Amino acid sequence: MSDAALLARAPRLARRASRMQASEIRELLKIIEQPGVISFAGGIPDPALFPVDVIRQHYSDILSDPVSAGRALQYSVSEGDADLRDWIVDHMRSRGVACSRDNILITSGSQQALEFTAKLFLSPGDTALVTAPTYLGALQAFAASEPVFQDLDVADIEATAAQVRTRSESDPSDCKFAYVVPDFANPSGETMDLAARRRLLDLAERLDIAIIEDSPYAALRYEGEPVAPIQALDLEGGRSIDESRVVFCGSFSKVFTPGMRLGWVCASRDLIRRLVLIKQSSDLNAPALNQMVVARLTADHFDRQAARAQAHYRAKRDAMLEALSQHMPAHARWSEPEGGMFIWLAAGAGIDTAALLPRAIEEARAAYVPGRAFYADGRTSDAMRLSFSLPDCAQIRAGVERLAELVRQAG
Amino acid sequence: MSDAALLARAPRLARRASRMQASEIRELLKIIEQPGVISFAGGIPDPALFPVDVIRQHYSDILSDPVSAGRALQYSVSEGDADLRDWIVDHMRSRGVACSRDNILITSGSQQALEFTAKLFLSPGDTALVTAPTYLGALQAFAASEPVFQDLDVADIEATAAQVRTRSESDPSDCKFAYVVPDFANPSGETMDLAARRRLLDLAERLDIAIIEDSPYAALRYEGEPVAPIQALDLEGGRSIDESRVVFCGSFSKVFTPGMRLGWVCASRDLIRRLVLIKQSSDLNAPALNQMVVARLTADHFDRQAARAQAHYRAKRDAMLEALSQHMPAHARWSEPEGGMFIWLAAGAGIDTAALLPRAIEEARAAYVPGRAFYADGRTSDAMRLSFSLPDCAQIRAGVERLAELVRQAG
Repeated sequence: MSDAALLARAPRLARRASRMQASEIRELLKIIEQPGVISFAGGIPDPALFPVDVIRQHYSDILSDPVSAGRALQYSVSEGDADLRDWIVDHMRSRGVACSRDNILITSGSQQALEFTAKLFLSPGDTALVTAPTYLGALQAFAASEPVFQDLDVADIEATAAQVRTRSESDPSDCKFAYVVPDFANPSGETMDLAARRRLLDLAERLDIAIIEDSPYAALRYEGEPVAPIQALDLEGGRSIDESRVVFCGSFSKVFTPGMRLGWVCASRDLIRRLVLIKQSSDLNAPALNQMVVARLTADHFDRQAARAQAHYRAKRDAMLEALSQHMPAHARWSEPEGGMFIWLAAGAGIDTAALLPRAIEEARAAYVPGRAFYADGRTSDAMRLSFSLPDCAQIRAGVERLAELVRQAG
Repeated sequence: MSDAALLARAPRLARRASRMQASEIRELLKIIEQPGVISFAGGIPDPALFPVDVIRQHYSDILSDPVSAGRALQYSVSEGDADLRDWIVDHMRSRGVACSRDNILITSGSQQALEFTAKLFLSPGDTALVTAPTYLGALQAFAASEPVFQDLDVADIEATAAQVRTRSESDPSDCKFAYVVPDFANPSGETMDLAARRRLLDLAERLDIAIIEDSPYAALRYEGEPVAPIQALDLEGGRSIDESRVVFCGSFSKVFTPGMRLGWVCASRDLIRRLVLIKQSSDLNAPALNQMVVARLTADHFDRQAARAQAHYRAKRDAMLEALSQHMPAHARWSEPEGGMFIWLAAGAGIDTAALLPRAIEEARAAYVPGRAFYADGRTSDAMRLSFSLPDCAQIRAGVERLAELVRQAG
């Protein structure tokens, strides 16, 4: 076959797909997987925490009983397992969100919840407000719906509102939602305080947009007091969940295991009803067996497992913060997260952390995700995201010391 | 809160989501779930066939070994489990499709494969060719990308080509693919013969479009000789899979269990690479644990389990065909499928099977899916889809006899 014929056979793709490229960052990250490199790159739970024995026992129990086995291995409802949804209802209530089973959809991880909210709200050209930096996976999930991204500045909602209005006047497309990770954000590690949450609600009210509250790390708090979910604040004054403009996304990946691929959405019944149709058309339902296992896990173990994870990750966070204080040069600054898995480090003006990554791996034998990955416009950044969840404390100390030397040289 | 205020808070949705409605058919189907009603409605595998003990043993083995347990419960690659992909490579080769691991993506059921192909090919307004009738779930999966559906007539590709060209001249949008279920189709039960498959390839060549070959039932053949996959025919004459315009979708749901929600796509490396990015942004990866279980199941049990399922469903198909011959009036006609789960019955001119369904349930105590559900334009239809997979042979005989009486009265 000639080259011309081959070319003629190249498939004609959707606009979204022909724009899609393997991210440069992901290409960079491939070189991380080398022996001897200490990785602070992935936001990956420590498998030492997986409650493997309990999980194995639940699989065995469910599959030993013919009735539960038949149900576990069959097609099931798109909404998700009723017992698991009921646990989530109690969990959301304990966080100040009064809701019922009809307000909950089970998703295949919170990544799917983000992709579904994009499908729900975004037509091509619509505006999505995202913080800068923001979660890379959210940018990818939203991109399939071809929005225009604009910066959300929760410190200055006047500026954000003005920027949205400027775009809208020259352009008939709409701003549809603001997306935030309010607790121990990926990648910044920062937590929005009550005042910031209220300002965001005010902005959403003025722009008449939804708020996507992505909160996979909320149970992993290592110090300080929990801040009420934005959804709970929206319900103050007696508003019902069915009138809420907040779509809350939760996850079982960080407390239990990401292997089940299970998360949830809590929102008004109207939105959940539409999201159920999206779930149905996307993959029918999350595996019933996995949902039944997690329903049993949550009922008995959620609080205990969360406490175990808190103690485990707190020690790692402390080790990283201590090593940073000890070794990093004066031109570096970093966040001090009260929970989660991430520290955001600004290496110093003029340092391009994407350009620096190959040297980090070859010379410092330590890896991070360059800040640039977390901006919708891919802007050059002097920041790096450091995850402390997977390496042990000795690796954290050694890796930070080596990275600090590199940052000193680059500064 | 006043009604006006409530209205003001109604969220502004994406165009696709505001068009989305709970299908009238699904509302109808809710009334099926009544005691005493024999349902031929769902295309649901018989749980009596689930290899529960083997599945339980695999879960136990995988979770008993710390290394495999850690891998099973962690995030994993979006492409899917390497062992499972290697089995699929062998399976596709045995069906005439020479391919390698890089040509395979694991999806969360073949429903997700359909949704992903829509994302890959369809921008809003693009044309998707679908048979009339076609699989309801495909219509739902494609609809999120807002295509225009046109009828694909594989018996008359000249007419189909002319219709596509007519639309394209008045409209800059593109025709992107033709979608077929070539083996024991859902809902018609029919199998495309070799000549029809070659005509479809010819049409695709002339229109320069992809072919989506959805083949979840292929292993469930009860008589006659297998027909080569359209993808295998596309590779005749030495064309490589990487030049193929066919996207093949397979499933483990019908042979093993739908509970794992696992299927696959086989396509050119270029398309798989893009589909992997779509998988990553949609839900990161299918649960590794379930993939590892199915990899072990396929290696030891696929052929044996397929043979079991063939014998089991063949008896049910025969019971239904015999009961139809015995009881249906002369104005009814039906397909005689060589495999799969479905018989398509035309009740007779002037009978609207959607309007008839409530009487079928109340009087005949038997249920079906009205033909209308399977047309993109929701046209009135005298057809019904009868599934023989779930009820036992006695129920099949009783239910068909009762339905036949109703069809006689309606005719």
